[in-house]
Amino acid sequence: MLEKLKQKVYEANMLLPKHGLVTFTWGNVSERDTETGYFVIKPSGVDYDKLQPADMVVMDLAGNKIEGSMNPSSDTATHVELYKAFPEIMGIVHTHSSWATSWAQAGRSIPCYGTTHADYIYGEIPCVRCLTKEEIDTAYEKNTGLVIADYFKDKDVTAVPAVLCKNHGVFTWGTSAENAVHNAVVAEEVAKMAARCEMINPQVQPAPQELQDKHYFRKHGKDAYYGQ
Amino acid sequence: MLEKLKQKVYEANMLLPKHGLVTFTWGNVSERDTETGYFVIKPSGVDYDKLQPADMVVMDLAGNKIEGSMNPSSDTATHVELYKAFPEIMGIVHTHSSWATSWAQAGRSIPCYGTTHADYIYGEIPCVRCLTKEEIDTAYEKNTGLVIADYFKDKDVTAVPAVLCKNHGVFTWGTSAENAVHNAVVAEEVAKMAARCEMINPQVQPAPQELQDKHYFRKHGKDAYYGQ
Amino acid sequence: MLEKLKQKVYEANMLLPKHGLVTFTWGNVSERDTETGYFVIKPSGVDYDKLQPADMVVMDLAGNKIEGSMNPSSDTATHVELYKAFPEIMGIVHTHSSWATSWAQAGRSIPCYGTTHADYIYGEIPCVRCLTKEEIDTAYEKNTGLVIADYFKDKDVTAVPAVLCKNHGVFTWGTSAENAVHNAVVAEEVAKMAARCEMINPQVQPAPQELQDKHYFRKHGKDAYYGQ
Amino acid sequence: MLEKLKQKVYEANMLLPKHGLVTFTWGNVSERDTETGYFVIKPSGVDYDKLQPADMVVMDLAGNKIEGSMNPSSDTATHVELYKAFPEIMGIVHTHSSWATSWAQAGRSIPCYGTTHADYIYGEIPCVRCLTKEEIDTAYEKNTGLVIADYFKDKDVTAVPAVLCKNHGVFTWGTSAENAVHNAVVAEEVAKMAARCEMINPQVQPAPQELQDKHYFRKHGKDAYYGQ
Repeated sequence: MLEKLKQKVYEANMLLPKHGLVTFTWGNVSERDTETGYFVIKPSGVDYDKLQPADMVVMDLAGNKIEGSMNPSSDTATHVELYKAFPEIMGIVHTHSSWATSWAQAGRSIPCYGTTHADYIYGEIPCVRCLTKEEIDTAYEKNTGLVIADYFKDKDVTAVPAVLCKNHGVFTWGTSAENAVHNAVVAEEVAKMAARCEMINPQVQPAPQELQDKHYFRKHGKDAYYGQ
Repeated sequence: MLEKLKQKVYEANMLLPKHGLVTFTWGNVSERDTETGYFVIKPSGVDYDKLQPADMVVMDLAGNKIEGSMNPSSDTATHVELYKAFPEIMGIVHTHSSWATSWAQAGRSIPCYGTTHADYIYGEIPCVRCLTKEEIDTAYEKNTGLVIADYFKDKDVTAVPAVLCKNHGVFTWGTSAENAVHNAVVAEEVAKMAARCEMINPQVQPAPQELQDKHYFRKHGKDAYYGQ
Repeated sequence: MLEKLKQKVYEANMLLPKHGLVTFTWGNVSERDTETGYFVIKPSGVDYDKLQPADMVVMDLAGNKIEGSMNPSSDTATHVELYKAFPEIMGIVHTHSSWATSWAQAGRSIPCYGTTHADYIYGEIPCVRCLTKEEIDTAYEKNTGLVIADYFKDKDVTAVPAVLCKNHGVFTWGTSAENAVHNAVVAEEVAKMAARCEMINPQVQPAPQELQDKHYFRKHGKDAYYGQ
Repeated sequence: MLEKLKQKVYEANMLLPKHGLVTFTWGNVSERDTETGYFVIKPSGVDYDKLQPADMVVMDLAGNKIEGSMNPSSDTATHVELYKAFPEIMGIVHTHSSWATSWAQAGRSIPCYGTTHADYIYGEIPCVRCLTKEEIDTAYEKNTGLVIADYFKDKDVTAVPAVLCKNHGVFTWGTSAENAVHNAVVAEEVAKMAARCEMINPQVQPAPQELQDKHYFRKHGKDAYYGQ
């Protein structure tokens, strides 16, 4: 079932090594199917150069495996919670990409220092809190999703399609698996430039709000005029 | 029309990913035609691996599209102002290349710390001011060009073929599209080495003026002796 | 003899340049044969692009060459001591990979700042002391192994499969040559992110112990559930 | 004439882009011929992807062009002075490789922080002084060579085959053009790790002298035992 979507999710997963976002198997991509409500995700711990479209696993939003001969990604429960909480999220990416993860390990949100960031993300990329010992010990991956969902519950999740999980890595999302990968590339590039920017000027301040508004809204919303 | 120039501008645009200066569509190159006064520029938001010479857009200096089935780069109005203000500029590049943009985000001009810089650029690479809210809200891209043009109005724009726009990215120019790309590569390399140089020695001073003069003038002007 | 193991050790050695862990000949990989107790190691100072499976050298644990037309790696005596001290070590890697070596030169252990580290290594990657002048002058490579073995003598060497040698480089080990290379890639990536993490937040603290436990034990031991 | 040597020098020049040491034409390699005393060097300002063995220029130690249709590298006069001062130097490389040049711009010698450095270079990589205004204005490239030669006049130039020229770049040398390129790769790698090492531990001290001695002399001199 969902063979076309498996192909799409496979291709989106293969973009992670292409863009240098993953080492070994440290990443996973999923996309939701609008009709069935299921989502398709990468299997757990399979090398990218051995991955096949048919290996993709079909899951429902209760966390049940619907189809697939392999175990789904160990982060599947996090994907479930994000899909459940935010109907507008259609694709999700998780990576340990190097610069974004360095910010996550540092426990800091990434300020918006420029228009590269503002072109895609409205305001800082937040770093959400570490889970408590109890949250970790009971249902770690599910609670990771709940902590993210709690942070965004009164915010526009489409305007900030990326989040850092403290001491862990980065999750991004979008209108499809491919779009979520696009945002993962943006998050990594923005994380790199923000770190270097602070090295060059330790007193740097975020970009003026009017500049952030201009760049975000020239690409998003009803008055957008970027692209074709 | 201008099919040869479209080919040249296409090739110059394709040098950006080759030299690692762009992620996705974050860059654009144009070149001016001496005869017609028009310039040819990359279309807006088109992936580099789908770009074709025929996609290039022909514009006049009033900002009118003369030929092309696509929208021109969203930064076209900035190119227009630079071509209008400086007849000696024949090609222009805009990128968000990582190190140069980190300096732009930091709001700092790049000092001339060595001969790699002095071989191509006479003095620091300036970081021009952010636009005011009014400048942003009225005609952002055009005003970006005007702020750059104002900075260089009493300076030799050929001796400093690069500028940082605060919180944004870098513009470079030259005697052709290809030469402007060359200067974009130089600006990125110089930005990288200047940041690392300050990390290695926080008290570093710019290179002595006589050394800057020597390197710049052995490659430029009537007494140049570098090359064939 | 041991032609299959030579092939495996050859392939594991070739993974070092593939993963960007070595410059020139600055690295070596070995694997132990369970039956004979011998181990197979790369020859000394041979370029990776000229290396052949047949060049691999067979050694015993007394440091005698059993087979091979070339000299074994100059670090062979270190491998010998590690194999002798820890029967659970089946493969060993030594490199001067850039980030791990920068920590070794800095004389600092790498704190566990996140789950990328905790997924593979339980607690910090230790930096063991420099050898004394006497240890260096008498049997340098052997004493390097003895200093490492002494550090791990009352610890679980499989839970911390990497060590930094002060002012030198990194050794990693595992259940095979290939697995040891895997850990060498992890050590380099973790070293890179830890350095950047401290740059982004100089006051950063190690990841909470419960998070380290969670990630380590979801991949290791009887309750592991990661992978297939 | 010297067709074989031209081929060797051509190949050594082509190693510079292969090892990521040059951008555009920012580098040059030469080798001396033992029989004639001439040396062969890259032409000035020629792109690496257009370079041909036949383009190499033959020079004598008085700085006269003996053969070649192109101008020799603009740094030829520096090569001349080094060959004249040090008969043991048979090949020379000049680059603006990124990390080594960052140290040169910072005006700092590179301390020996570890065995990667000590394996090839005995003690720090010195950063020699800037030229005076008079030295720059009269015979800049020749005086660059004289300043280096003066620094090494009472030292063993084979034990320290690399030097930084303040605010400029790096020169390395060796027993052949290829060996000099080898040392240029080492200098760049060592420069990178030393900078990162100081970032990780700002109070870091050079490696103990006995460790430097051990690594240098296990690869050099009559008691060397590294390699085949």
